Amino acid sequence: LGVSGAAAPSGVITLTTDFGLEAPFVGVMKGVILALLPQARIIDLTHQIEPYWPAEAGFWLARSFGWFPRGSVHVAVVDPGVGTARGLLAVSAAGHHFLAPDNGLLAPLLSRYPDALVVRVDAARGGVMPAVSNTFHGRDILAPLAARLAAGSCTCAGLGEPVSAWVPSPVGEAVAAAGRVSGVVITIDRYGNLISNIDAALLSAQGSPVVRAGPLALPLTRTYGDMPAGSYLALINSFGVVEVARSQGNAAASLGLGRGAPVTVTGSG
Amino acid sequence: LGVSGAAAPSGVITLTTDFGLEAPFVGVMKGVILALLPQARIIDLTHQIEPYWPAEAGFWLARSFGWFPRGSVHVAVVDPGVGTARGLLAVSAAGHHFLAPDNGLLAPLLSRYPDALVVRVDAARGGVMPAVSNTFHGRDILAPLAARLAAGSCTCAGLGEPVSAWVPSPVGEAVAAAGRVSGVVITIDRYGNLISNIDAALLSAQGSPVVRAGPLALPLTRTYGDMPAGSYLALINSFGVVEVARSQGNAAASLGLGRGAPVTVTGSG
Amino acid sequence: LGVSGAAAPSGVITLTTDFGLEAPFVGVMKGVILALLPQARIIDLTHQIEPYWPAEAGFWLARSFGWFPRGSVHVAVVDPGVGTARGLLAVSAAGHHFLAPDNGLLAPLLSRYPDALVVRVDAARGGVMPAVSNTFHGRDILAPLAARLAAGSCTCAGLGEPVSAWVPSPVGEAVAAAGRVSGVVITIDRYGNLISNIDAALLSAQGSPVVRAGPLALPLTRTYGDMPAGSYLALINSFGVVEVARSQGNAAASLGLGRGAPVTVTGSG
Repeated sequence: LGVSGAAAPSGVITLTTDFGLEAPFVGVMKGVILALLPQARIIDLTHQIEPYWPAEAGFWLARSFGWFPRGSVHVAVVDPGVGTARGLLAVSAAGHHFLAPDNGLLAPLLSRYPDALVVRVDAARGGVMPAVSNTFHGRDILAPLAARLAAGSCTCAGLGEPVSAWVPSPVGEAVAAAGRVSGVVITIDRYGNLISNIDAALLSAQGSPVVRAGPLALPLTRTYGDMPAGSYLALINSFGVVEVARSQGNAAASLGLGRGAPVTVTGSG
Repeated sequence: LGVSGAAAPSGVITLTTDFGLEAPFVGVMKGVILALLPQARIIDLTHQIEPYWPAEAGFWLARSFGWFPRGSVHVAVVDPGVGTARGLLAVSAAGHHFLAPDNGLLAPLLSRYPDALVVRVDAARGGVMPAVSNTFHGRDILAPLAARLAAGSCTCAGLGEPVSAWVPSPVGEAVAAAGRVSGVVITIDRYGNLISNIDAALLSAQGSPVVRAGPLALPLTRTYGDMPAGSYLALINSFGVVEVARSQGNAAASLGLGRGAPVTVTGSG
Repeated sequence: LGVSGAAAPSGVITLTTDFGLEAPFVGVMKGVILALLPQARIIDLTHQIEPYWPAEAGFWLARSFGWFPRGSVHVAVVDPGVGTARGLLAVSAAGHHFLAPDNGLLAPLLSRYPDALVVRVDAARGGVMPAVSNTFHGRDILAPLAARLAAGSCTCAGLGEPVSAWVPSPVGEAVAAAGRVSGVVITIDRYGNLISNIDAALLSAQGSPVVRAGPLALPLTRTYGDMPAGSYLALINSFGVVEVARSQGNAAASLGLGRGAPVTVTGSG
């Protein structure tokens, strides 16, 4: 086990995209994978990432991959630059492998694992589909490479040259300064919960945090059901970040807040 | 094979939730399962249950599990009370296993299988994730227990103490009285079909049933295509319950009816 | 390997429907398959086909199945005529098997593979569920037959009598005449890209094609990112057909165009 955290392949491949489920884009990626690795177990993380917004995919990927067995391969495709000069990255970190466009998507992961191995994928080395389209590298490059990584027939190191720089996230990490932590709503779930990019660790120095989003100023509560139906609340959710919710309701719809809306946390003063 | 209908594990685990597919909540539950039971075959029943409404999940679960191999494990999470004092149930019935919050979700199943083994899950017995969050017991308790049940490494009986009472469904079963069967719209499918909780068995004594929903009074027909496009119709659907539909149209949208709307069936008199 | 392109079963079964994911219809089809063939690997192509519109399912199926391993079984259910006198077809073509209603759904496939073996399914030959409903043949007939085809325990030829005629597609293929190729928007993806049924091969004789849809007249470009955000563009997409898109935007919503809207391609004159 080296610094890059290599692990025996688990045979699990996860997919995270903004493709939606209307067209068979996800399905054909799975077909390509199964043609190369019949025993692959392919899991959808989500295909409902806000179109063209890699920040949301990167947020979820960095906070979700750890629930999968070590040696899993995680493919993320939110890729408005497909077919242009933008690169593709292969990353090994924490015993997992990652494949994604070099557009900031992997920045939240890479900021957490400074010893990750990061490679710029060189499709000319082979292992990709015989004909690569200009508009669907998820199918033509990333799916076959994911199958090979999951099969153990290649490593990230073999996919290209290591790089030490990559495109930063289009959305900065939350920052703590002068007694205030400032972040944004990075994703919204089906319940309308406003999920921020503020990690609980940033709040540790604070006494009684107050979470502000839109017109609200809320103390932290333990769980949704601790508040009466209809009440707004804030909590540290099960992925370790600050979330604003409405008990048995939809905070996003009620407040008219969306992705990118500011969320701040201060002491109770 | 005892009264609880124990069967050899099939390795199949089904998931039914109100999580939606926007966030990776379902995906990480699958990750937890695969880390414990790599050969698990995990099937989504639906993740589009009306948020916070366990009645719909219980309806579908009770009428769907029988299509899966005996020895399957069925996990259902519609759980507005997560992290509060509400309990979790493990049930063995008809050769299948079930895991869900004790909030009425399993009531439609339990009313059909009076000899089911019902256990209140005691997470302190172990087998759950090392750290249990306050807001995602699907991932932290139910997924690992499902993996163990599907692996055959534990039984429902081993998960806690048997109980003989549980929270009733928030929606009553349909009732037949004085020549009239009264139920409600319990779910709506993508076609806008209004699916009631009225089982066909309740109609057996009637001659020529008339189904009423909103402004409509409809005889039973055999199938959608027996009526011209645009016509409303009523039938006994493939899950054995009364349904109101519009041929090649959307009854729910056209009629403005939703979950909870009354549906009644009377003789043709 | 005969004219029908028979291949050893891959164990892969794909599903394409207009069922949506709200109700567990897809889930129970998978349950039926797994009960018969536990090792089946079942992949969703899409369940978001426009309700009651087999043309869209046929378009995607004909252009997607080739990404799956030879010997796969593809089940498509867009079936407003379920339970009426309409037939069910089993097809072997290009080393794959297909099951679908005889309502035009398979026409795009059959027009590409004139040597396909086409059989009208005779459910009376057995291999289906003991009780066949009037409204869900996907579960009661097609799922069990798919499992048997995928297991190699039957062939398409064994499912019924060969036929040489079938219901044509409700949407014609694109036609080239007098220097103009005329087609329609056949599907729209999550990005709002307007995907036509005009194959690139129809354009080969043209010099500098101009694509017309709604008010637009667009030259062909290489990929989305070659145009500034917000610009409309046309390209040959990764499934080999003409597509009209808006860079980092939603062409369908912006233009108010939907399925069936005309798309034409002419020389640049």
